[in-house]
Amino acid sequence: MKWKMFLLVFAIIALAGDASPSPSATPQDQIRAVLESQQDAWNRGDLDAFMQGYWKSDRTEFVGASGIERGWQAVLDRYRKVYPDRAAMAKLTFSNLEITMLGPRAALVLGEWRLDRASDQPHGVFTLIFRQFPEGWRIIYDHTSAAEK
Amino acid sequence: MKWKMFLLVFAIIALAGDASPSPSATPQDQIRAVLESQQDAWNRGDLDAFMQGYWKSDRTEFVGASGIERGWQAVLDRYRKVYPDRAAMAKLTFSNLEITMLGPRAALVLGEWRLDRASDQPHGVFTLIFRQFPEGWRIIYDHTSAAEK
Repeated sequence: MKWKMFLLVFAIIALAGDASPSPSATPQDQIRAVLESQQDAWNRGDLDAFMQGYWKSDRTEFVGASGIERGWQAVLDRYRKVYPDRAAMAKLTFSNLEITMLGPRAALVLGEWRLDRASDQPHGVFTLIFRQFPEGWRIIYDHTSAAEK
Repeated sequence: MKWKMFLLVFAIIALAGDASPSPSATPQDQIRAVLESQQDAWNRGDLDAFMQGYWKSDRTEFVGASGIERGWQAVLDRYRKVYPDRAAMAKLTFSNLEITMLGPRAALVLGEWRLDRASDQPHGVFTLIFRQFPEGWRIIYDHTSAAEK
């Protein structure tokens, strides 16, 4: 019966492996996946899922044209205020991501954003600092700015 | 005569200590010193000295409202174009610096900038990424944006 037990243990390990992220995924792959999830969440109007890309901490910061927001909740509140409905959220696209590792658990991301709305197409650049936590890579700092009109 | 030799060695060590940065200076102290040097250089119209705060590399990046500059020389060229003379440079003030270590040799700096010119007072925020090199802490990445008018 030993080989059946071996098979069972092997099957459990194989299934567990399927459920967790690929161990061969690089930090860059994992960071790109977080940003893709954010883009998809935004484009289905799911701000709560979008916010999962940010570190859920009072120390998370968002820097924009309107000033500095301190803390995950303040960042969410700002998004809710600036983008009150699906029409305002419209369609978000991230592009030209450049990821620079700053250490084994910290990365800098430069990217471009664009909103395709019926009335206007605001766009610009963002600087993100990601840190790796037990739950995965999360944005601890976001500086987003719009291009000159 | 041994005590004289001891005194000489002691004096040499003390003098050497004076000439190099204090070994007790924290990364935060050293980063603040770089930014103070930059502010002072700007305010005496010395753009070359100001640029010493940036990593002298083709990989240094400056992100602003006009786009992304890649490389130390491109960053200098942009400053020369946007601030062609002392009147345009005017008086620069950095304030409210927040320094977050991202690893032993990388740091994030959030700060505010303000130019006091005769005609206007542009101001805003900046995000800097510093890295420690053998020559000291240098800016490898700068995202500067202006506050909404």
